Amino acid sequence: MKENQINNSFLENLINNNRRTVARSISIVESDNSSSSELLKNVYAKVGNAYRIGITGPPGAGKSTITNQLTKYFRKQNKKVGIIAVDPTSPFTGGALLGDRIRMSEVGQDAGVFIRSMATRGSLGGLSKKANDAADILDAAGYDYIILETVGVGQSELDIVEAADTTIVVLVPESGDAVQAMKAGLMEIADFFVVNKSDRPGSQQAISALKTILMMKDHDINSWMPSIISSVASENKGISEIADEIERHRNYLISTKKFLERREHRTKIRIKEIVEDKIRDLLWNESGKNSLNSSLEKVVLGNLSPYHIAEEIIDNFKNQF
Amino acid sequence: MKENQINNSFLENLINNNRRTVARSISIVESDNSSSSELLKNVYAKVGNAYRIGITGPPGAGKSTITNQLTKYFRKQNKKVGIIAVDPTSPFTGGALLGDRIRMSEVGQDAGVFIRSMATRGSLGGLSKKANDAADILDAAGYDYIILETVGVGQSELDIVEAADTTIVVLVPESGDAVQAMKAGLMEIADFFVVNKSDRPGSQQAISALKTILMMKDHDINSWMPSIISSVASENKGISEIADEIERHRNYLISTKKFLERREHRTKIRIKEIVEDKIRDLLWNESGKNSLNSSLEKVVLGNLSPYHIAEEIIDNFKNQF
Repeated sequence: MKENQINNSFLENLINNNRRTVARSISIVESDNSSSSELLKNVYAKVGNAYRIGITGPPGAGKSTITNQLTKYFRKQNKKVGIIAVDPTSPFTGGALLGDRIRMSEVGQDAGVFIRSMATRGSLGGLSKKANDAADILDAAGYDYIILETVGVGQSELDIVEAADTTIVVLVPESGDAVQAMKAGLMEIADFFVVNKSDRPGSQQAISALKTILMMKDHDINSWMPSIISSVASENKGISEIADEIERHRNYLISTKKFLERREHRTKIRIKEIVEDKIRDLLWNESGKNSLNSSLEKVVLGNLSPYHIAEEIIDNFKNQF
Repeated sequence: MKENQINNSFLENLINNNRRTVARSISIVESDNSSSSELLKNVYAKVGNAYRIGITGPPGAGKSTITNQLTKYFRKQNKKVGIIAVDPTSPFTGGALLGDRIRMSEVGQDAGVFIRSMATRGSLGGLSKKANDAADILDAAGYDYIILETVGVGQSELDIVEAADTTIVVLVPESGDAVQAMKAGLMEIADFFVVNKSDRPGSQQAISALKTILMMKDHDINSWMPSIISSVASENKGISEIADEIERHRNYLISTKKFLERREHRTKIRIKEIVEDKIRDLLWNESGKNSLNSSLEKVVLGNLSPYHIAEEIIDNFKNQF
């Protein structure tokens, strides 16, 4: 797609939620070239109306099923739902693993639902930016809720859901899951927890363990205390409770002015990401890459440390300007 | 620690494996200030003799137990072992969760073993660099094996073990673990697999599933084919097989010249990390932070997009030089 194709009629189609234009727009922001910045600049005035929900948790916790059921719930309220599902890439199939997505085909046929899977391949650091750019596209296209779903196990994945207005951490009752979640940094970002598959043994103990861990956290009486909701998403149990809790958290954010604070914080992070991405591009352009490769020989041949080489590269970089 | 304390006697103590000096040196590289670069530049001539082993896998797979047993095995061969364990940070306790480490106290009393836990708090992107810097310190101090152990579930964690000479992915027989590992990007980086806790039900099925997935991968007849080893690390079963497989992989790397290729690749990644870290420091110095905060108001008040602001910040940055 050429830059000059992002003309007024293209933007109008996007804002009117023309599915093909939405799909192409997300492809543009995924490709992350100059057209991408151009498009995002042009739609930014239309961004900010959607409510963003982050869903994360360990692999196998049932995040996709919850996303699926929650989407059906919102659809009954006649709300449009956009879904950005970030799947780790399989090196064997060469693409995102779509197994979980197949289960979602039920909602995927609905014109009020837009699902996009993003793969993590080779997107060191840029993934959170791309997921949020895609969320901006769906926001501009008029989706009421945007669900950002990702396996919550690494910093770059956590960054994605941290940009949401409400972040849900999904766990299963298996012994130790709460502790593992704590270790993976999930406790920090949860606005509330869902213990899914709560018909399995150990569910009550898991909830108790989670409560104990939450009680350990200092919090003043007026601040938000993350709650714990039980669900069996595959049987649609607990879904309306999840939707209610999202609403309760949304009202809390708005009444305490934390809503704008959070969005300001998110904007700040995004600006930093955009700046760092662009600087990285400048650093490792053709001449930067060549300078890295040629200096590599110096490290291998002599005993010049990577720190010496890094200083040389930075000096060269500064001298460009 | 002041920079001028990194004098010849300090460096000599480090190279002679004085434990206090080693500990202080790792603290210096963790703090990541100018003393850190200075120290690493000075020791670099002594770096490169240790063999680096990465151990990763999902939470609860038994990585620490394997590290512990493997360390005891290497100690019997009179090899010195350095361990860098990267623990995700708990926001509640304010530090790395040391539960897994407690189990290692057995080897921790041995003068031929050095264990260091690193927390992930606030180290967006810099973690892999710090872990490898710490490995360089242990390398310079004369440790024969350096084990880099981390929960293998996010890009920044995978970066850590990818810098190893041999990377081991530890799984448990639970149904679906192999598929989840594939989704988490672990298949790509494994030089071989360990199915730990293989006395549990489902072990044979897990190994078969893993084999099937591995068979799907294109590989030519001369390239390395990741093997699968069963273990019950808590009972010391399978540990000598793991050590043998490390040795076999090491010999493969050396005989095919891939050993130097890998190390060259690692050096390249490290130089990039150092450069990007230093550039980030330059970007978000006092004036950079102020410019970000003041432009944030423009986004909130008007409808100026983060992309516009990012361009402003980059222009200001370039104009510094």
